[in-house]
Amino acid sequence: MKHRSVFLILAALISGGICLAQTNQPAVVEDFKPSSVNQPDKQYPQVNSEGRVRVSISAPQALRVQFDIGAVKYDLTKDDKGVWIGECAPQDEGFHYYQLWVDGAAVPDPNSLYFYGASRWGSGIEIPAKDQDFYTLKNVPHGQVREHFYFSKSNNSMRHCFVYTPPDYDKDFNKRYPVLYLQHGGGEDETGWSNQGKANLIMDNLIAEGKARPFIIVMDNGTWRMPEQARPPRQGERPAGNWPPPGWADVFKKTLLEDIIPMIDANYRTLADQPHRAMAGLSMGGMQTRVVTLASPEKFSYVGIFSGGSISMEDIKTAPGFKEKIKLVFVSYGSRELENRRSAFGGDPKATTDSLKAVGMNTHFYVSPLTAHEWQSWRRSLHEFAPLLFKD
Amino acid sequence: MKHRSVFLILAALISGGICLAQTNQPAVVEDFKPSSVNQPDKQYPQVNSEGRVRVSISAPQALRVQFDIGAVKYDLTKDDKGVWIGECAPQDEGFHYYQLWVDGAAVPDPNSLYFYGASRWGSGIEIPAKDQDFYTLKNVPHGQVREHFYFSKSNNSMRHCFVYTPPDYDKDFNKRYPVLYLQHGGGEDETGWSNQGKANLIMDNLIAEGKARPFIIVMDNGTWRMPEQARPPRQGERPAGNWPPPGWADVFKKTLLEDIIPMIDANYRTLADQPHRAMAGLSMGGMQTRVVTLASPEKFSYVGIFSGGSISMEDIKTAPGFKEKIKLVFVSYGSRELENRRSAFGGDPKATTDSLKAVGMNTHFYVSPLTAHEWQSWRRSLHEFAPLLFKD
Repeated sequence: MKHRSVFLILAALISGGICLAQTNQPAVVEDFKPSSVNQPDKQYPQVNSEGRVRVSISAPQALRVQFDIGAVKYDLTKDDKGVWIGECAPQDEGFHYYQLWVDGAAVPDPNSLYFYGASRWGSGIEIPAKDQDFYTLKNVPHGQVREHFYFSKSNNSMRHCFVYTPPDYDKDFNKRYPVLYLQHGGGEDETGWSNQGKANLIMDNLIAEGKARPFIIVMDNGTWRMPEQARPPRQGERPAGNWPPPGWADVFKKTLLEDIIPMIDANYRTLADQPHRAMAGLSMGGMQTRVVTLASPEKFSYVGIFSGGSISMEDIKTAPGFKEKIKLVFVSYGSRELENRRSAFGGDPKATTDSLKAVGMNTHFYVSPLTAHEWQSWRRSLHEFAPLLFKD
Repeated sequence: MKHRSVFLILAALISGGICLAQTNQPAVVEDFKPSSVNQPDKQYPQVNSEGRVRVSISAPQALRVQFDIGAVKYDLTKDDKGVWIGECAPQDEGFHYYQLWVDGAAVPDPNSLYFYGASRWGSGIEIPAKDQDFYTLKNVPHGQVREHFYFSKSNNSMRHCFVYTPPDYDKDFNKRYPVLYLQHGGGEDETGWSNQGKANLIMDNLIAEGKARPFIIVMDNGTWRMPEQARPPRQGERPAGNWPPPGWADVFKKTLLEDIIPMIDANYRTLADQPHRAMAGLSMGGMQTRVVTLASPEKFSYVGIFSGGSISMEDIKTAPGFKEKIKLVFVSYGSRELENRRSAFGGDPKATTDSLKAVGMNTHFYVSPLTAHEWQSWRRSLHEFAPLLFKD
């Protein structure tokens, strides 16, 4: 015990030194305001005009507290009341996950709201964005996000999904609507697209402006558990040829085609045909969209792949009917992903998408400015994608 | 720094001693299973057949980690890998809030799901209950819980509520439904009744068994901010005559009557009249129910007050029409609240409720066995209350 404590004293002294070095940087602009996703009445975390986040936590007996955001840990400094405080380097506009480390324990910040991502419910922060108007809650007609429980035969279990119904859904009981099946990324779940993605607010605002046709969005859980022997490529690494392993998307494909779509068509006033059904997803959800729509072009007309690869001529050659039946292939990335060459799973996504256009397909390639593999890229992708859907 | 560290070493040695004393108790039954409200794939927290909760967290550099549940802090013990573990005394059946303390920082357990209560989003645990069948997710027809955004004129701001619609709501577009306005307690919010209270599952199961008439439930935010000069009575203390201060419920009453009810009647297929409108709430929400229904018996027929006081003959004498128009006054408490004399806000709730029955009112007094001022009392109260509603 005593030996460890001496180590801890050293660790604290060292961390104190690091803190001083960091907080002495002259660049911090002192216009911090509480984050929009704080818990009620909480003054921290705060965000400044540079996109820096300042966190604070009371931990009187702690020896080292760190703020972990964007894969970097920042040491906090302690005042004489035991309250730790500190800030990170400027972050991209939009939403980011983060956590705190208190003497080696990785914990959520008790001041923030919590979001499911990075395979845990944990803290999130919102950096105000120049274009945030498109996902801001406004006094316009609003749709609903409904929690829907159902029994899945293919999984032999109860499941639930979230269903966005557009603003007028309950006004005219004779009207039927197209449906977008919208998938989250790896380590996220069915809550992501409304909580972090603000899909409902994006749609409400687009519909209020007459920029998108009202449609239903179904957000279900596509979590895929990787076999022990496989591992995903690390950032910047070329994926191995056998990753993801063949058949990785089969369980979700079966659940979607055999359970979710029939359940939605039975319980909502859908236009239950191929011309009025779309699928899109981010990252892993985009990869699932690619697999499912290549295998079933008779089910879907519109395809959206956000930061999740692209569809190539080679793919199409082995997918009968895809070229003829699909009305749109939409592919998007954050600009920093392209810089960082995180454009895996099918080569250069712009080039492959252009190759489909060259043979007569309707394609759309979108790049989110100054964002990475993160929610701001995907909010913008949905905002670009939705107006292109169901144009009949 | 050095002086503080010596203190911390002493604190750690002392806490180690306390831990040993606690974990040497012979009574712990080793049949722990992961909690039903753990985050995906998390093995801790666990619950045993005695209702003890065992938590675990990795905190290699921490000197003291505590498990804080039911107003008691339990010291955890650390293994040679820096993982802390320990358990609490047996808890009542049902749902409880808890948190961890890591070297003085109060934080959520990173392994649990999070719930809003005790004025924060934080950890919760579910102790399996002998009667849990009534709120278990089953393969029966399910209603939906819908997030509904609206503009509140009386608050001049956007608000949202959660609306439970019963299983057949979207099947017959000519059918209209009664409405229950169901309020949370102090330090909780509009998410409580579905997340912790499982109001939707309670209703789905009752309706599937033919024990309750299908109705809509509206769960909105009734948070009331106490004036600086006032303070609530502490546990076991008689409240001062002037607490809560007059007018404390006026803001929510105005929001409910002028914004929420007209908005619900305009957007849902309600039976928009007094015979088909009920109000109920727990704790603070019960107190609001008392104030609102005494002031507006022309709006509501059914009144439910769960662990939130009762309605007396004196109340009725100054509430014209209440005695004649109200079809049911339902009052409930957890049995441990009555033992602990937490039956504030109107004297003995059984006696006052009986006094209404003596003058011809329809009343129902329910006591939840072996529970306190906690969600299991309120789940059971809703389960008792719902079958009594809208019997016309």
